[in-house]
Amino acid sequence: MEAAWAELPYSQGSLLGSVNPDLASERQTASFSVEKLTAWLDGGTEHTRLRRAVVEAIECDPVFSRENQYFESQNERYEAAVRKAVHLQKKMDEMGWTENGPEFKYIYRALSGDLAFLLHRIFTRSISMLGSDQQIAKWIPLATQYQLIGSYAQTELGHGTYLQGLETTAVFDITTQEFVLNTPNISAMKWWPGDMGRSATHTVVFAQLYVNGKCYGLHPFIVQIRSLQDHSLCPGITAGDIGPKMNFEHIDNGYLMLQNVRVPRENMLSKFCEVQPDGTYVRRGSQKINYFTMTTVRISLILDEVVIPLMKACTIAIRYSVVRRQSKLKPGEQEAKILDYQTQQEKLLPQLAAAYAFYFISDYLQELFDRGYREIQRKNFDMLPELHAFSSGFKAMVTQYSTSAVEICLRACGGHGYSLLSGLPSLYTKIVASCIYEGENTILFLQTARFLIKCFMAASTGQPVPPSVTYLAAVTPEKCPAKNKLDFLSPDIYTEAYQHMAARLINSTAAKLQDLVQSGVKKHDAWNQCTVQLAQAAKAHCHYITVKNFAETVEKLETQPGIQKIMKHLCDLFALHGIFSNAGVFLHDGYISGAQMDMVTASYLDLLAVIRKDAVPLVDAFDFTDKTLNSALGSYDGQVYQRLYEWAQKSPTNKQISPAYERYLKPLLHKTLSKL
Amino acid sequence: MEAAWAELPYSQGSLLGSVNPDLASERQTASFSVEKLTAWLDGGTEHTRLRRAVVEAIECDPVFSRENQYFESQNERYEAAVRKAVHLQKKMDEMGWTENGPEFKYIYRALSGDLAFLLHRIFTRSISMLGSDQQIAKWIPLATQYQLIGSYAQTELGHGTYLQGLETTAVFDITTQEFVLNTPNISAMKWWPGDMGRSATHTVVFAQLYVNGKCYGLHPFIVQIRSLQDHSLCPGITAGDIGPKMNFEHIDNGYLMLQNVRVPRENMLSKFCEVQPDGTYVRRGSQKINYFTMTTVRISLILDEVVIPLMKACTIAIRYSVVRRQSKLKPGEQEAKILDYQTQQEKLLPQLAAAYAFYFISDYLQELFDRGYREIQRKNFDMLPELHAFSSGFKAMVTQYSTSAVEICLRACGGHGYSLLSGLPSLYTKIVASCIYEGENTILFLQTARFLIKCFMAASTGQPVPPSVTYLAAVTPEKCPAKNKLDFLSPDIYTEAYQHMAARLINSTAAKLQDLVQSGVKKHDAWNQCTVQLAQAAKAHCHYITVKNFAETVEKLETQPGIQKIMKHLCDLFALHGIFSNAGVFLHDGYISGAQMDMVTASYLDLLAVIRKDAVPLVDAFDFTDKTLNSALGSYDGQVYQRLYEWAQKSPTNKQISPAYERYLKPLLHKTLSKL
Repeated sequence: MEAAWAELPYSQGSLLGSVNPDLASERQTASFSVEKLTAWLDGGTEHTRLRRAVVEAIECDPVFSRENQYFESQNERYEAAVRKAVHLQKKMDEMGWTENGPEFKYIYRALSGDLAFLLHRIFTRSISMLGSDQQIAKWIPLATQYQLIGSYAQTELGHGTYLQGLETTAVFDITTQEFVLNTPNISAMKWWPGDMGRSATHTVVFAQLYVNGKCYGLHPFIVQIRSLQDHSLCPGITAGDIGPKMNFEHIDNGYLMLQNVRVPRENMLSKFCEVQPDGTYVRRGSQKINYFTMTTVRISLILDEVVIPLMKACTIAIRYSVVRRQSKLKPGEQEAKILDYQTQQEKLLPQLAAAYAFYFISDYLQELFDRGYREIQRKNFDMLPELHAFSSGFKAMVTQYSTSAVEICLRACGGHGYSLLSGLPSLYTKIVASCIYEGENTILFLQTARFLIKCFMAASTGQPVPPSVTYLAAVTPEKCPAKNKLDFLSPDIYTEAYQHMAARLINSTAAKLQDLVQSGVKKHDAWNQCTVQLAQAAKAHCHYITVKNFAETVEKLETQPGIQKIMKHLCDLFALHGIFSNAGVFLHDGYISGAQMDMVTASYLDLLAVIRKDAVPLVDAFDFTDKTLNSALGSYDGQVYQRLYEWAQKSPTNKQISPAYERYLKPLLHKTLSKL
Repeated sequence: MEAAWAELPYSQGSLLGSVNPDLASERQTASFSVEKLTAWLDGGTEHTRLRRAVVEAIECDPVFSRENQYFESQNERYEAAVRKAVHLQKKMDEMGWTENGPEFKYIYRALSGDLAFLLHRIFTRSISMLGSDQQIAKWIPLATQYQLIGSYAQTELGHGTYLQGLETTAVFDITTQEFVLNTPNISAMKWWPGDMGRSATHTVVFAQLYVNGKCYGLHPFIVQIRSLQDHSLCPGITAGDIGPKMNFEHIDNGYLMLQNVRVPRENMLSKFCEVQPDGTYVRRGSQKINYFTMTTVRISLILDEVVIPLMKACTIAIRYSVVRRQSKLKPGEQEAKILDYQTQQEKLLPQLAAAYAFYFISDYLQELFDRGYREIQRKNFDMLPELHAFSSGFKAMVTQYSTSAVEICLRACGGHGYSLLSGLPSLYTKIVASCIYEGENTILFLQTARFLIKCFMAASTGQPVPPSVTYLAAVTPEKCPAKNKLDFLSPDIYTEAYQHMAARLINSTAAKLQDLVQSGVKKHDAWNQCTVQLAQAAKAHCHYITVKNFAETVEKLETQPGIQKIMKHLCDLFALHGIFSNAGVFLHDGYISGAQMDMVTASYLDLLAVIRKDAVPLVDAFDFTDKTLNSALGSYDGQVYQRLYEWAQKSPTNKQISPAYERYLKPLLHKTLSKL
């Protein structure tokens, strides 16, 4: 035993870099080319090349290092984020990257969003969209050169998604040609805006506009909150940081109270509305476009804040699950890789399939949005309701599903998944926020439901509806035609099942709503009594579209048969997992029978074993660098234990002799010395 | 507006303590006596009195304060936990409280488990259970007086639940009469033991025992790891802290490597096995009792680590949901309390019902365990398999359900739930660990499933089985007899539905297993191919027993009709929520028809509105003090916004001017001065 010890790998310097043989073997049997899949996901090899170049440029710059992130305090995280944001400006100049260029999304990916001044970007965007030409000319150059730092103050301590309820006031004072801003109540304090707690010098404040005692509703005002000279708070301003959160320690989410703060008349953003010097209120153009801003934010966050983190979680959990061995599958053999257990496959592979499904749906939504944007530029606003409904419902569905998927990945890694060093806890604590910000999910589902109910009513009376919802009035068979388990590997079969189910839920909820109203229940009460089912119906609609879009994406892959085959398996898995886990809604009206559900289950479980073989290549294709993953469990080389040990030694808990010893332990323990 | 500002509540000192009127009004309409419900939950008024006295004694002692907990670093949390543990010893002496007295559970509740040396307790317990009389006489007095600090080193970096896989070795050296302990590989490093990273001087190490080259399997050894003189590591010991985790910052989970560490022969715990001086290995007595230790730990953690945190989360989320107002339910009215929305009720009230259900099942398990313990003391080990199966399955079900319940509570509070100051994030990050520790949930479910399959086989061939599983062979009707939605408020109806469903899942999985084996699949492969369904069946069994136990608990309440009535509603809600959310398994064989499922849904949604009225009294009855909840959202007075604001100001992010300003922001902003 003694001799063996001296030859231990960990007594001889690091193994990091040499690939763990259990992981290496997984890569030798891929049924497809990982490089080709990566290129296809990126939209072509030239995109892959650009992405890799950008990521490398970021990662080789030590200022952007995330090496010690898991050990840092909230104050340290904030400081690092500011440092990175300021340095990034320089770097972008140096590299010739622009904010609106193709590189920015790769920069954001390489930094894992870990930088300050993201709200500054919203500040800038809101001025560009809502400001007059003069306002744009004045503020945008300052903002883009970081000569001021902006924030965006909308949400209040007592008011979130329901914007009409905001209480902050802006009263026009005709004598001085100023607006006087006030926080009339504690619940009116601005609360949560990023970059506001410690950084911002300016902010766009949303306030109820009063002119001559009349309220004109919410309007945006540019307000300076801190001195450019010494960063002290401006007169009438109370502001600070809202304290610790579940994640986003790097962001200084802040609070803001306004006490008789005066801004010149020119500081109300006035592309669409203006208060003229004599107090006349003028509204011009369409305000519908405001809708569109939220839509674009919701669509872009799906990829950046949700799908990419989910892909990371899958990469970490799946690589770890072929390195970790536990118990024996067969008596007498060595302990088995945990991914060889059906239960572990059933935890992780559906999440992997979902990551692909949501990657494709994010593409689909982006295309829909681009089409909508072109129409809007031609002053055609017809697509707005559909876009709003889609961005709301998919934001809600994808964030909810992915949050639970990341949690499954974390728990599937057992104790080590619970260590911050695995990278999984921070992915979870960050993604869970996506269920809340940019519209709380339940409210979003209900907005989608309202659209669907309207379309259903229209479609059933023969009126035209957007193509995505014509299925609501389509006639489908009453029974699923599948005869054996292989039939359930046909996209037509399962897509139709999803369509039938979504249509039924919308249909039956619409009927309940009508019944209630006809029985004398007031409309708003009836609506409230149906909301649990309405939210379920909206989710079912989004699930259906996601399955359909996945199947269509696979179909288009005919020129790449290797990739098409494995994508087909994932599509089948995503669809059958959904039926297996939501069996009730498919069985409810007998569309799928109990016997057919057994076929679904059989095919679903068979697929797990098939996809298992390609699990590692499928996550390798996401092409995350080790630095991006920042995970002791998920690195490319699979040196899990070595890395956990090396990283743990860097923890501040190992760098300091705790004062607790001298203060509390020593007095106790010294009593013992004589007794042992 | 100016005048109004000067009169703001927050400009006039704190409102804390005066109850928010929206919350106060909820307490005036309770359908039952909160005080009576509290007393009943505690098991009698005398228990309530004792609990309150203990909690008060702890809370009025500033050493135990958790006031700044959300702002502290891992190092600070650790130091506070040690301080509290040492102080608690003094306090207990002072108050005449004993470790095994009735007070300890209340102490733990008052401290929210936030103290060091919990593993020291396991160290002590393992010596008491596994040590010889001499060993007990030597070590226990030292341990109970904290004259040494113990830990319990079982889990290794590469080995968790599968204990046979542990790699640490202990070789008997006959010449010196010592055991030589080694860590033969990096994956054999002890990893995770609490109190080991920085505190422990001694630990019980589990290692594979070798005598004369023969391996005798795992045995426990007492090993000193740190000097009692100066706390330095002993020769051959490498140890430290494993670094940051998702929670449990107050615990110094550690790692330990052993390099030719020698301990005397007397340090092997030898109640059941001994190595004699000549190297003869002697085994005595039954080792089955080892089983029982894990069983007791699993049963006791259900209440302390899972149900109480869930009750806290419900208290916080429900109180907040009657203070928070958002949007309008009826046009023209003021914004509505969010708990008046059906969707919010549907999020929170089933979790409240689950908290009660699990409180009762924890009682049930405790009784079962007490009965088992009495039998074991009479050397009757017959109940061990049932106890093991129950403790495994219920630990898995309750932790999984409650983790998701706490997450729902967190998300139901929107943005403010995401602030650490709400108390919800730390409840979540702590409870999620319970799915992993003391046996990973999937593995536990499968152990329960193995027991159920065995019992099913026995029962179907007429052999006797424990009373809790006789239902597996019972004949039940093929269709649920309910005719209208009110029938589903009958405990007989829904309990029978659960029973039918659980029996069917076990039955059908047993059949699949048999089919596979009969078709030539090897037994272990067949088992693996059924594990997804086996886990589902085990969960269904536990769900059924929980519903049944809830219904029986309600029945026994006949002398307290007020409480019985509201408990009946909660029992109905728990049961119908389970059918509604797992509709597939009830619809699968037609036991419940689609039309009946609509009745379930209708009754379920109706119940939400009924229980809504008593929601606040139902959480008040849990009787948590504000200090125990430690939540800005959940305090008894409901002064949510005031408290968030006051607490945020104490954050270190507001107490320091960030170096980021001088370093990064000032150089940028000073360029701007001339331009604005």
